[in-house]
Amino acid sequence: MAVRLGELVAALGGELHGPVHQLVHRIAPLESGDAGSIAFLSNPKYRAQLLTTQAGCVIVSPAVLEEAVARGAAIVTADPYLYFARLTQWWAERVRPRPAAGIHPSAVVDATAVIGQNVHIGPLAVVEAGAILEDGVIVGPHCTVGARARIGADTRLAPRVTIGFDCVVGARCLFHSGVVIGADGFGFAPHQGAWEKIEQLGAVRIGDDVELGANTCVDRGALEDTTIGNGVKLDNLVQIAHNVHIGDHSAMAGCVGVAGSARIGKHCTVGGAGMILGHLTLADHVHVSSGTLISRSVLKPGLYSGAFPFDENANWEKNAATLRQLHALRDRIRTLEKQVKS
Amino acid sequence: MAVRLGELVAALGGELHGPVHQLVHRIAPLESGDAGSIAFLSNPKYRAQLLTTQAGCVIVSPAVLEEAVARGAAIVTADPYLYFARLTQWWAERVRPRPAAGIHPSAVVDATAVIGQNVHIGPLAVVEAGAILEDGVIVGPHCTVGARARIGADTRLAPRVTIGFDCVVGARCLFHSGVVIGADGFGFAPHQGAWEKIEQLGAVRIGDDVELGANTCVDRGALEDTTIGNGVKLDNLVQIAHNVHIGDHSAMAGCVGVAGSARIGKHCTVGGAGMILGHLTLADHVHVSSGTLISRSVLKPGLYSGAFPFDENANWEKNAATLRQLHALRDRIRTLEKQVKS
Amino acid sequence: MAVRLGELVAALGGELHGPVHQLVHRIAPLESGDAGSIAFLSNPKYRAQLLTTQAGCVIVSPAVLEEAVARGAAIVTADPYLYFARLTQWWAERVRPRPAAGIHPSAVVDATAVIGQNVHIGPLAVVEAGAILEDGVIVGPHCTVGARARIGADTRLAPRVTIGFDCVVGARCLFHSGVVIGADGFGFAPHQGAWEKIEQLGAVRIGDDVELGANTCVDRGALEDTTIGNGVKLDNLVQIAHNVHIGDHSAMAGCVGVAGSARIGKHCTVGGAGMILGHLTLADHVHVSSGTLISRSVLKPGLYSGAFPFDENANWEKNAATLRQLHALRDRIRTLEKQVKS
Repeated sequence: MAVRLGELVAALGGELHGPVHQLVHRIAPLESGDAGSIAFLSNPKYRAQLLTTQAGCVIVSPAVLEEAVARGAAIVTADPYLYFARLTQWWAERVRPRPAAGIHPSAVVDATAVIGQNVHIGPLAVVEAGAILEDGVIVGPHCTVGARARIGADTRLAPRVTIGFDCVVGARCLFHSGVVIGADGFGFAPHQGAWEKIEQLGAVRIGDDVELGANTCVDRGALEDTTIGNGVKLDNLVQIAHNVHIGDHSAMAGCVGVAGSARIGKHCTVGGAGMILGHLTLADHVHVSSGTLISRSVLKPGLYSGAFPFDENANWEKNAATLRQLHALRDRIRTLEKQVKS
Repeated sequence: MAVRLGELVAALGGELHGPVHQLVHRIAPLESGDAGSIAFLSNPKYRAQLLTTQAGCVIVSPAVLEEAVARGAAIVTADPYLYFARLTQWWAERVRPRPAAGIHPSAVVDATAVIGQNVHIGPLAVVEAGAILEDGVIVGPHCTVGARARIGADTRLAPRVTIGFDCVVGARCLFHSGVVIGADGFGFAPHQGAWEKIEQLGAVRIGDDVELGANTCVDRGALEDTTIGNGVKLDNLVQIAHNVHIGDHSAMAGCVGVAGSARIGKHCTVGGAGMILGHLTLADHVHVSSGTLISRSVLKPGLYSGAFPFDENANWEKNAATLRQLHALRDRIRTLEKQVKS
Repeated sequence: MAVRLGELVAALGGELHGPVHQLVHRIAPLESGDAGSIAFLSNPKYRAQLLTTQAGCVIVSPAVLEEAVARGAAIVTADPYLYFARLTQWWAERVRPRPAAGIHPSAVVDATAVIGQNVHIGPLAVVEAGAILEDGVIVGPHCTVGARARIGADTRLAPRVTIGFDCVVGARCLFHSGVVIGADGFGFAPHQGAWEKIEQLGAVRIGDDVELGANTCVDRGALEDTTIGNGVKLDNLVQIAHNVHIGDHSAMAGCVGVAGSARIGKHCTVGGAGMILGHLTLADHVHVSSGTLISRSVLKPGLYSGAFPFDENANWEKNAATLRQLHALRDRIRTLEKQVKS
């Protein structure tokens, strides 16, 4: 890969301070960039890095323009992080050509499946009866698209993604390897000490521009559908239980779990290993810190936390032991207060 | 789907109050049911919903019969939730016909595998040497059944389930996509700063009527077998380590982990993201709340909890910081008590 | 399997006290071993078990030699646990012959892939263009090895492992079923309430002798590579985010998560469900207890903990409620101290 700065700015905008013919061979962090690299600075508080970076060109905001041009080429833009994101997209399109349209001869595609224009179905994939793949869909090796499932235009399934029967996926989604859409929700009626299965008769509906990380699961609903809004981003190993609704543009980091029938608003975020209990409501713009268990509804936007602060083991042991008597300590304080008062 | 109420009651029991010829087209929640729906009310405290539901027929207990019939058709039964569960099963059998018996030509089935009557092996599945599939087993696309593994009658493997060599699965089980049975347990001997592998020579034995959720893992034992009792239900992304024993009819929600050699009793439940440390014993009927780490054996039935209560971030920060001095606070209370006493 | 004690000692060393022709049929725990079993005692504090075990031969340290030989055959070695580990390896090699070299006719192997000597590629595996499998590699059924990925000599991929394009895996690794290497890291720039994807242009580099458990994920880096050192062992359902570095010989138990750009030292351990936040540094020899969230860098070796101590639910409820007022309690103690002093 070798791109001229002028070509980048022509494609992505920004104000170039430097030679249009200067070549860029890679995108790199400021710390490790060399003369053939383009790097970015999004947080002005790290502007000191501009003094030491070897990167041939830096993407910066107007606030640091002076330092940036003092050291070499620069592209100035209002939001360098966004510019960087778009640069990676532009770059990826060039270094990772999309697989050619067509169905690999080893794939098993039912004759009743409806396959759009310019669809790629990789080796050893399975597409079941009545499934619909809209134009430009990419189905990786070892994927299964279940009966009557529908995959929206330009959605990409990485190798080994499983889409259950009757599930619906929007356009321009990206699901990573190991994703399971439409396994049964976890529903049982207790009966004489055993569990009687509640068959899960709903499906899963996923909006447009959704990204799901590796080995993430979204279960089908019991009676109605589990739904995931447009622009939602879920990281790896996330568990979305049956009948959950996730609002548009919410994002969740790795190892998060959302229990059955929870309703998550729009523009929410959940940090790694956060856990949302069932049948709760989270308003729009609720943010949950890593490792926090949300045990009742949160109707006010804001940041909510609840992780135990870690410590050296010996300190933790003492504090944890005392914690088990915390309520008793409170009573002792009350008693003291009365005694002191009297 | 269109079913007459009389047909339902003939199949599932219950006392019908209403026209036997009334048609039902779907099962729905009380809130969203319409004239073609059948809904259920299991908790009498929500009986007010009977006044507003549009569902054509409701399944209710005798306690609310009066309100129920005042508004339309009703089926009366002692346990409406159980009735609902069985209704979903009856329904699913009709709308989801089992796949036809036979081996898909793209499946790779070893000549020495033993295949029972009425077995379905889906496209691109692998059945290795000496594996035994009993009558009525369904093996989905992309499953691997390892060498000498045995799958009991009428067990269903969803697409992409991996059963390790020598593992044994009971009858009428249901394993969802991504399940891994019989990966190596995590065992290493430390040696000069590195880890020497302990080969895992046991297998996994799973009882009858077990359901395992998507991407759930059950590791093989080190010397003896990891065992899961009859009727156990595990949700998605659950980790069962080597040499664990889980008693009959225990159930665990999503993201739970059980560490090596733990012995879980019968009829236990573990809430989402609960974690049971290794070499512990949980008695029968122990219930663990979501997000709770069980760090020593629990020999008395009951409910055990241990999640940090979440709060607005600013409050949590103050309390968490103070928590790190909790033991010191206790000492200060003691000092105060002595001073006040003297 | 039937082995003479003399044969074992010839292969694995140790000092045999007992008949060289005595037969061993299995390796068993002390508690359940019978006359045909060999068992081991590594912790002298359990030496009482030597009095009751029925095992035909026991592996022991010199400290318990007397009790051991009083009851039957014994192999004496400085580190019985290490001896046991090597015995399991020796045993496994005999009872689990490696699959024959060759490419199964149902596998889809690109003509430009480079396949070493003595490589086994199982049924329905996919090896993409330019991938390199070094000598002795074993690729299980349903694996995908992506374009230009490189797999080191004698590495084994269990059924259904996915290695992303451009990723590099060292020699003698073992990856269990469901492992996903090289899914995209979770990176997005916020833009007008939505998320703009940052394409992940790095890859994953994994050292030699690494073991990864079932359904564990290692994401590709944003610009540079995610790296895992030599001898690292990760259990099942572990999440390693983009740009993480894990030092040699570190080990993590099930359900652990490591967030983006964290740098974990050498010889670290993380207990089950531990969670390491992003952009942190853990020094060498840092040990994290189960269920602990590490929220800032830890530069001093040692054991760190932070799980909420579980309790009977009623007690926990009281203590948890009080915990939310902990900071206020501290203030009340201060007030009391002032009052008592004055």
